Amino acid sequence: MASLLRSAGRVRPALARSIARPVSRVAPIALSRQYASPAAGAFFPDEPTAPTVKTQIPGPKSQAAIERLSKVFDTRSLNMMADYGQSYGNYIADLDGNVLLDVYAQIASIPVGYNNPTLQLAATSPEMASALINRPALGNFPQHDWADILETGILSVAPKGLDQVFTGQTGSDANELAYKAAFMWKRQQQRGGAHVDFTDHEISSSMTNESPGAPELSILSFTSAFHGRLFGSLSTTRSKPIHKLDIPAFDWPQAPFPSLKYPLDQFAAENAAEEQRCLEETEHLITTWRAPPAAVVVEPIQSEGGDNHASPKFFNGLRELTKKHDILFIVDEVQTGVGATGKFWAHEHWNLSSPPDMVTFSKKAQTAGYYYGNNDLRPNKPYRQFNTWMGDPARAILFRAIIQEIKRLNLVQSTAVTGNYLFDGLKQLAEHYPKEIQNLRGKGQGTFIAWDSPRRDEVLKKAKSVGVNIGGSGEKAVRLRPMLVFQQHHADLLLERLEQIFKA
Amino acid sequence: MASLLRSAGRVRPALARSIARPVSRVAPIALSRQYASPAAGAFFPDEPTAPTVKTQIPGPKSQAAIERLSKVFDTRSLNMMADYGQSYGNYIADLDGNVLLDVYAQIASIPVGYNNPTLQLAATSPEMASALINRPALGNFPQHDWADILETGILSVAPKGLDQVFTGQTGSDANELAYKAAFMWKRQQQRGGAHVDFTDHEISSSMTNESPGAPELSILSFTSAFHGRLFGSLSTTRSKPIHKLDIPAFDWPQAPFPSLKYPLDQFAAENAAEEQRCLEETEHLITTWRAPPAAVVVEPIQSEGGDNHASPKFFNGLRELTKKHDILFIVDEVQTGVGATGKFWAHEHWNLSSPPDMVTFSKKAQTAGYYYGNNDLRPNKPYRQFNTWMGDPARAILFRAIIQEIKRLNLVQSTAVTGNYLFDGLKQLAEHYPKEIQNLRGKGQGTFIAWDSPRRDEVLKKAKSVGVNIGGSGEKAVRLRPMLVFQQHHADLLLERLEQIFKA
Repeated sequence: MASLLRSAGRVRPALARSIARPVSRVAPIALSRQYASPAAGAFFPDEPTAPTVKTQIPGPKSQAAIERLSKVFDTRSLNMMADYGQSYGNYIADLDGNVLLDVYAQIASIPVGYNNPTLQLAATSPEMASALINRPALGNFPQHDWADILETGILSVAPKGLDQVFTGQTGSDANELAYKAAFMWKRQQQRGGAHVDFTDHEISSSMTNESPGAPELSILSFTSAFHGRLFGSLSTTRSKPIHKLDIPAFDWPQAPFPSLKYPLDQFAAENAAEEQRCLEETEHLITTWRAPPAAVVVEPIQSEGGDNHASPKFFNGLRELTKKHDILFIVDEVQTGVGATGKFWAHEHWNLSSPPDMVTFSKKAQTAGYYYGNNDLRPNKPYRQFNTWMGDPARAILFRAIIQEIKRLNLVQSTAVTGNYLFDGLKQLAEHYPKEIQNLRGKGQGTFIAWDSPRRDEVLKKAKSVGVNIGGSGEKAVRLRPMLVFQQHHADLLLERLEQIFKA
Repeated sequence: MASLLRSAGRVRPALARSIARPVSRVAPIALSRQYASPAAGAFFPDEPTAPTVKTQIPGPKSQAAIERLSKVFDTRSLNMMADYGQSYGNYIADLDGNVLLDVYAQIASIPVGYNNPTLQLAATSPEMASALINRPALGNFPQHDWADILETGILSVAPKGLDQVFTGQTGSDANELAYKAAFMWKRQQQRGGAHVDFTDHEISSSMTNESPGAPELSILSFTSAFHGRLFGSLSTTRSKPIHKLDIPAFDWPQAPFPSLKYPLDQFAAENAAEEQRCLEETEHLITTWRAPPAAVVVEPIQSEGGDNHASPKFFNGLRELTKKHDILFIVDEVQTGVGATGKFWAHEHWNLSSPPDMVTFSKKAQTAGYYYGNNDLRPNKPYRQFNTWMGDPARAILFRAIIQEIKRLNLVQSTAVTGNYLFDGLKQLAEHYPKEIQNLRGKGQGTFIAWDSPRRDEVLKKAKSVGVNIGGSGEKAVRLRPMLVFQQHHADLLLERLEQIFKA
């Protein structure tokens, strides 16, 4: 880690120049061609060298397209009507000729750049065409090369200690499938093992949604957590009322997630006490909640909930608690996984004494599922964890190509280095604009960086006018979720445009 | 309908000859080339003319592949290790050179044949490649042609009266999204309209999964129903204990689904009384259940639950009940939709006085979602019905190609005609083998045909040895779910092979 910081330190003068450079303040403005060609070693050598802002966003063509779409599809959450044919690398284009540096990346789900040529090859392969048009019911009629696709793709990046996978389609799906596996595991354990059959009472009560067949067990999650929006996953989501209002939910417990003070190194003692308090409350809930938890689920960095961090010690504490009370530890890496934190899986930062029981993934993987290692997590009979498609080989083939691209370009390491460089630049910016950048966080976590802004929504809106697409999280956080092909020259550009907003 | 039956009647002699033809009883046997070229007008002129059975299934190569896969993926529900490169039209191939007539079609989800050339074109188009590699967060950054893809695809086959869609990815997903829309609609209505804001109590209680924010409302479903396997959908699924055991469920009501006697025309009075009983019990539950239903969800033909039918009068009764009690009527067309019943949507058979409030789809659509028509079903604020991907343009493009192929070949009408022909043939078989084919059902419902068999699992197993891949449903039903490209010559072959099994 220290060497990475030094590496970022060496390039600081360029950054300083970049920040100091005066830029036009008129918006909307045409910002293109302010830069010379990007640094040597650019992953997308023919990428735009800077954003182009030609109109307000949405411009007239986009407005017409939005109006048309809104007749048949809800567009009230629409952020930008995109033209993906014109998007490339880190740049997203719209119908009006605007081309923005994209550090939101489809809510953190584009891994290696728009129209990535390696993915293009995979997408146009005969193998992909067959996977698309001959979609199998994987549990019944898997394609003969499914083991190969898994082993050379999804499983080639399996977290340490986890060598099996159950595939799904979305992050919500992945988490709910993991929860189901946890409930079946816990009930089997309570029953006395895989060989003990269901009682008649369990069988009959399951059909009327009553205990013991439909057991009064729970999944413990944390305040501000986000694990998805279907009924089981939403019951563990505690991000915002708008995500939960009016939807029936299970009576499941939420433990407090540590509320840390930043910068972390200045509040070490207070933060340690806060984490200890949260661990104690977690244990209290595990041992006393009316529907006992079968598992604890946690995000390495709470993302939708506002980019909330905790220390490796906290997560090690959770791992110990789950072992002590014989329940499962599920790590939800839907948003943190696949490289963005400078490790392939964010929980690698923790150096756990034993691996999580399950790790869920989606987003940048462009497919979804949960990894596991313990054979006891295979339910004792077939058809218990089952559905028609059980994932999608087409998307699994795409993830394999994404993995190949990540390895070819060493993108996890690159993201670690670029992230440190970007964090240092933001720290400098925060010193100049302390009201604009508060509670800067994500140091040493790749480009998975965020800060709080008292005028967050205004900043995000203004960012578009200066050529950058940025997202928020929680109530006031600006969250950066660039792709893994985000490099130093992109970081320079982002820092410059942020300063432009703060100055205005 | 009458004209279709006459049309099927005219070809009866050929069927009779087919059934009477003696066939070899040795199994496993090589059955290929027993037929001359298929009838003129075959949709796949170069399709195999008959199955080939070279080995027991699984054969040695398949066994090796299964063994390898089982190390990383649960294979206990595996039915057949498929080689999709060698599959074509209605025929599925395996690694050992076996080529079977497939009337199960990936659990009813392959619409227009393996390696269909029209789908091949769509799958290899630049548009598809872009959709695969530039996957948008559709709610935030839709691609500019999303309205066009919807209008020329998914919405071009929207059920009458429903002109909007919310897209998802699986059948479970589609149903749960529809349930969420129903709950938000009902609570808005109880609150007094879209303009009435949430109370502080609703907001705070939603975050702790408690009422009123997480309301005590329900979805009413029926005995033997199948609506999916995630937590909300599984709470409405009542198919089999193995689907539900050990998974926590919501305390939601189930009404009795009519238990009809076959043939329907011989038991008209008894069946009408049974349906009336079920409607009365449904109304009783709607008015008295502790968590009042926001919606009733029903399949046009209960599929996983054993192929249970009810009359149009019953479904019209449900529609009236939901209107009377001001709740929503959701029709789950995940398995029945997209042509298999001889109508594009099975609920078209009912001639409803007003359309369903929502219709869900997946499987043969190769994508998923729910149709709706009422603007009040758009929640009153953005981000209430939302998730990262909200469907998949790649799969929506594929569904468009499927629709084009269905229209080009007039496959819905063809399925209606072939279905009648097949039903008549099965009726004749049932007369010769009354113990083998009991409660034959699906008359006038295209190829969506099933019957009960006292030795169902044995029949399904033997079917493979004579070259046919067939599935079951419920405890004892043999269910036919051929593709829409299943034609008369396939029906002849199926009937012949069934007789071969029954004779043995």
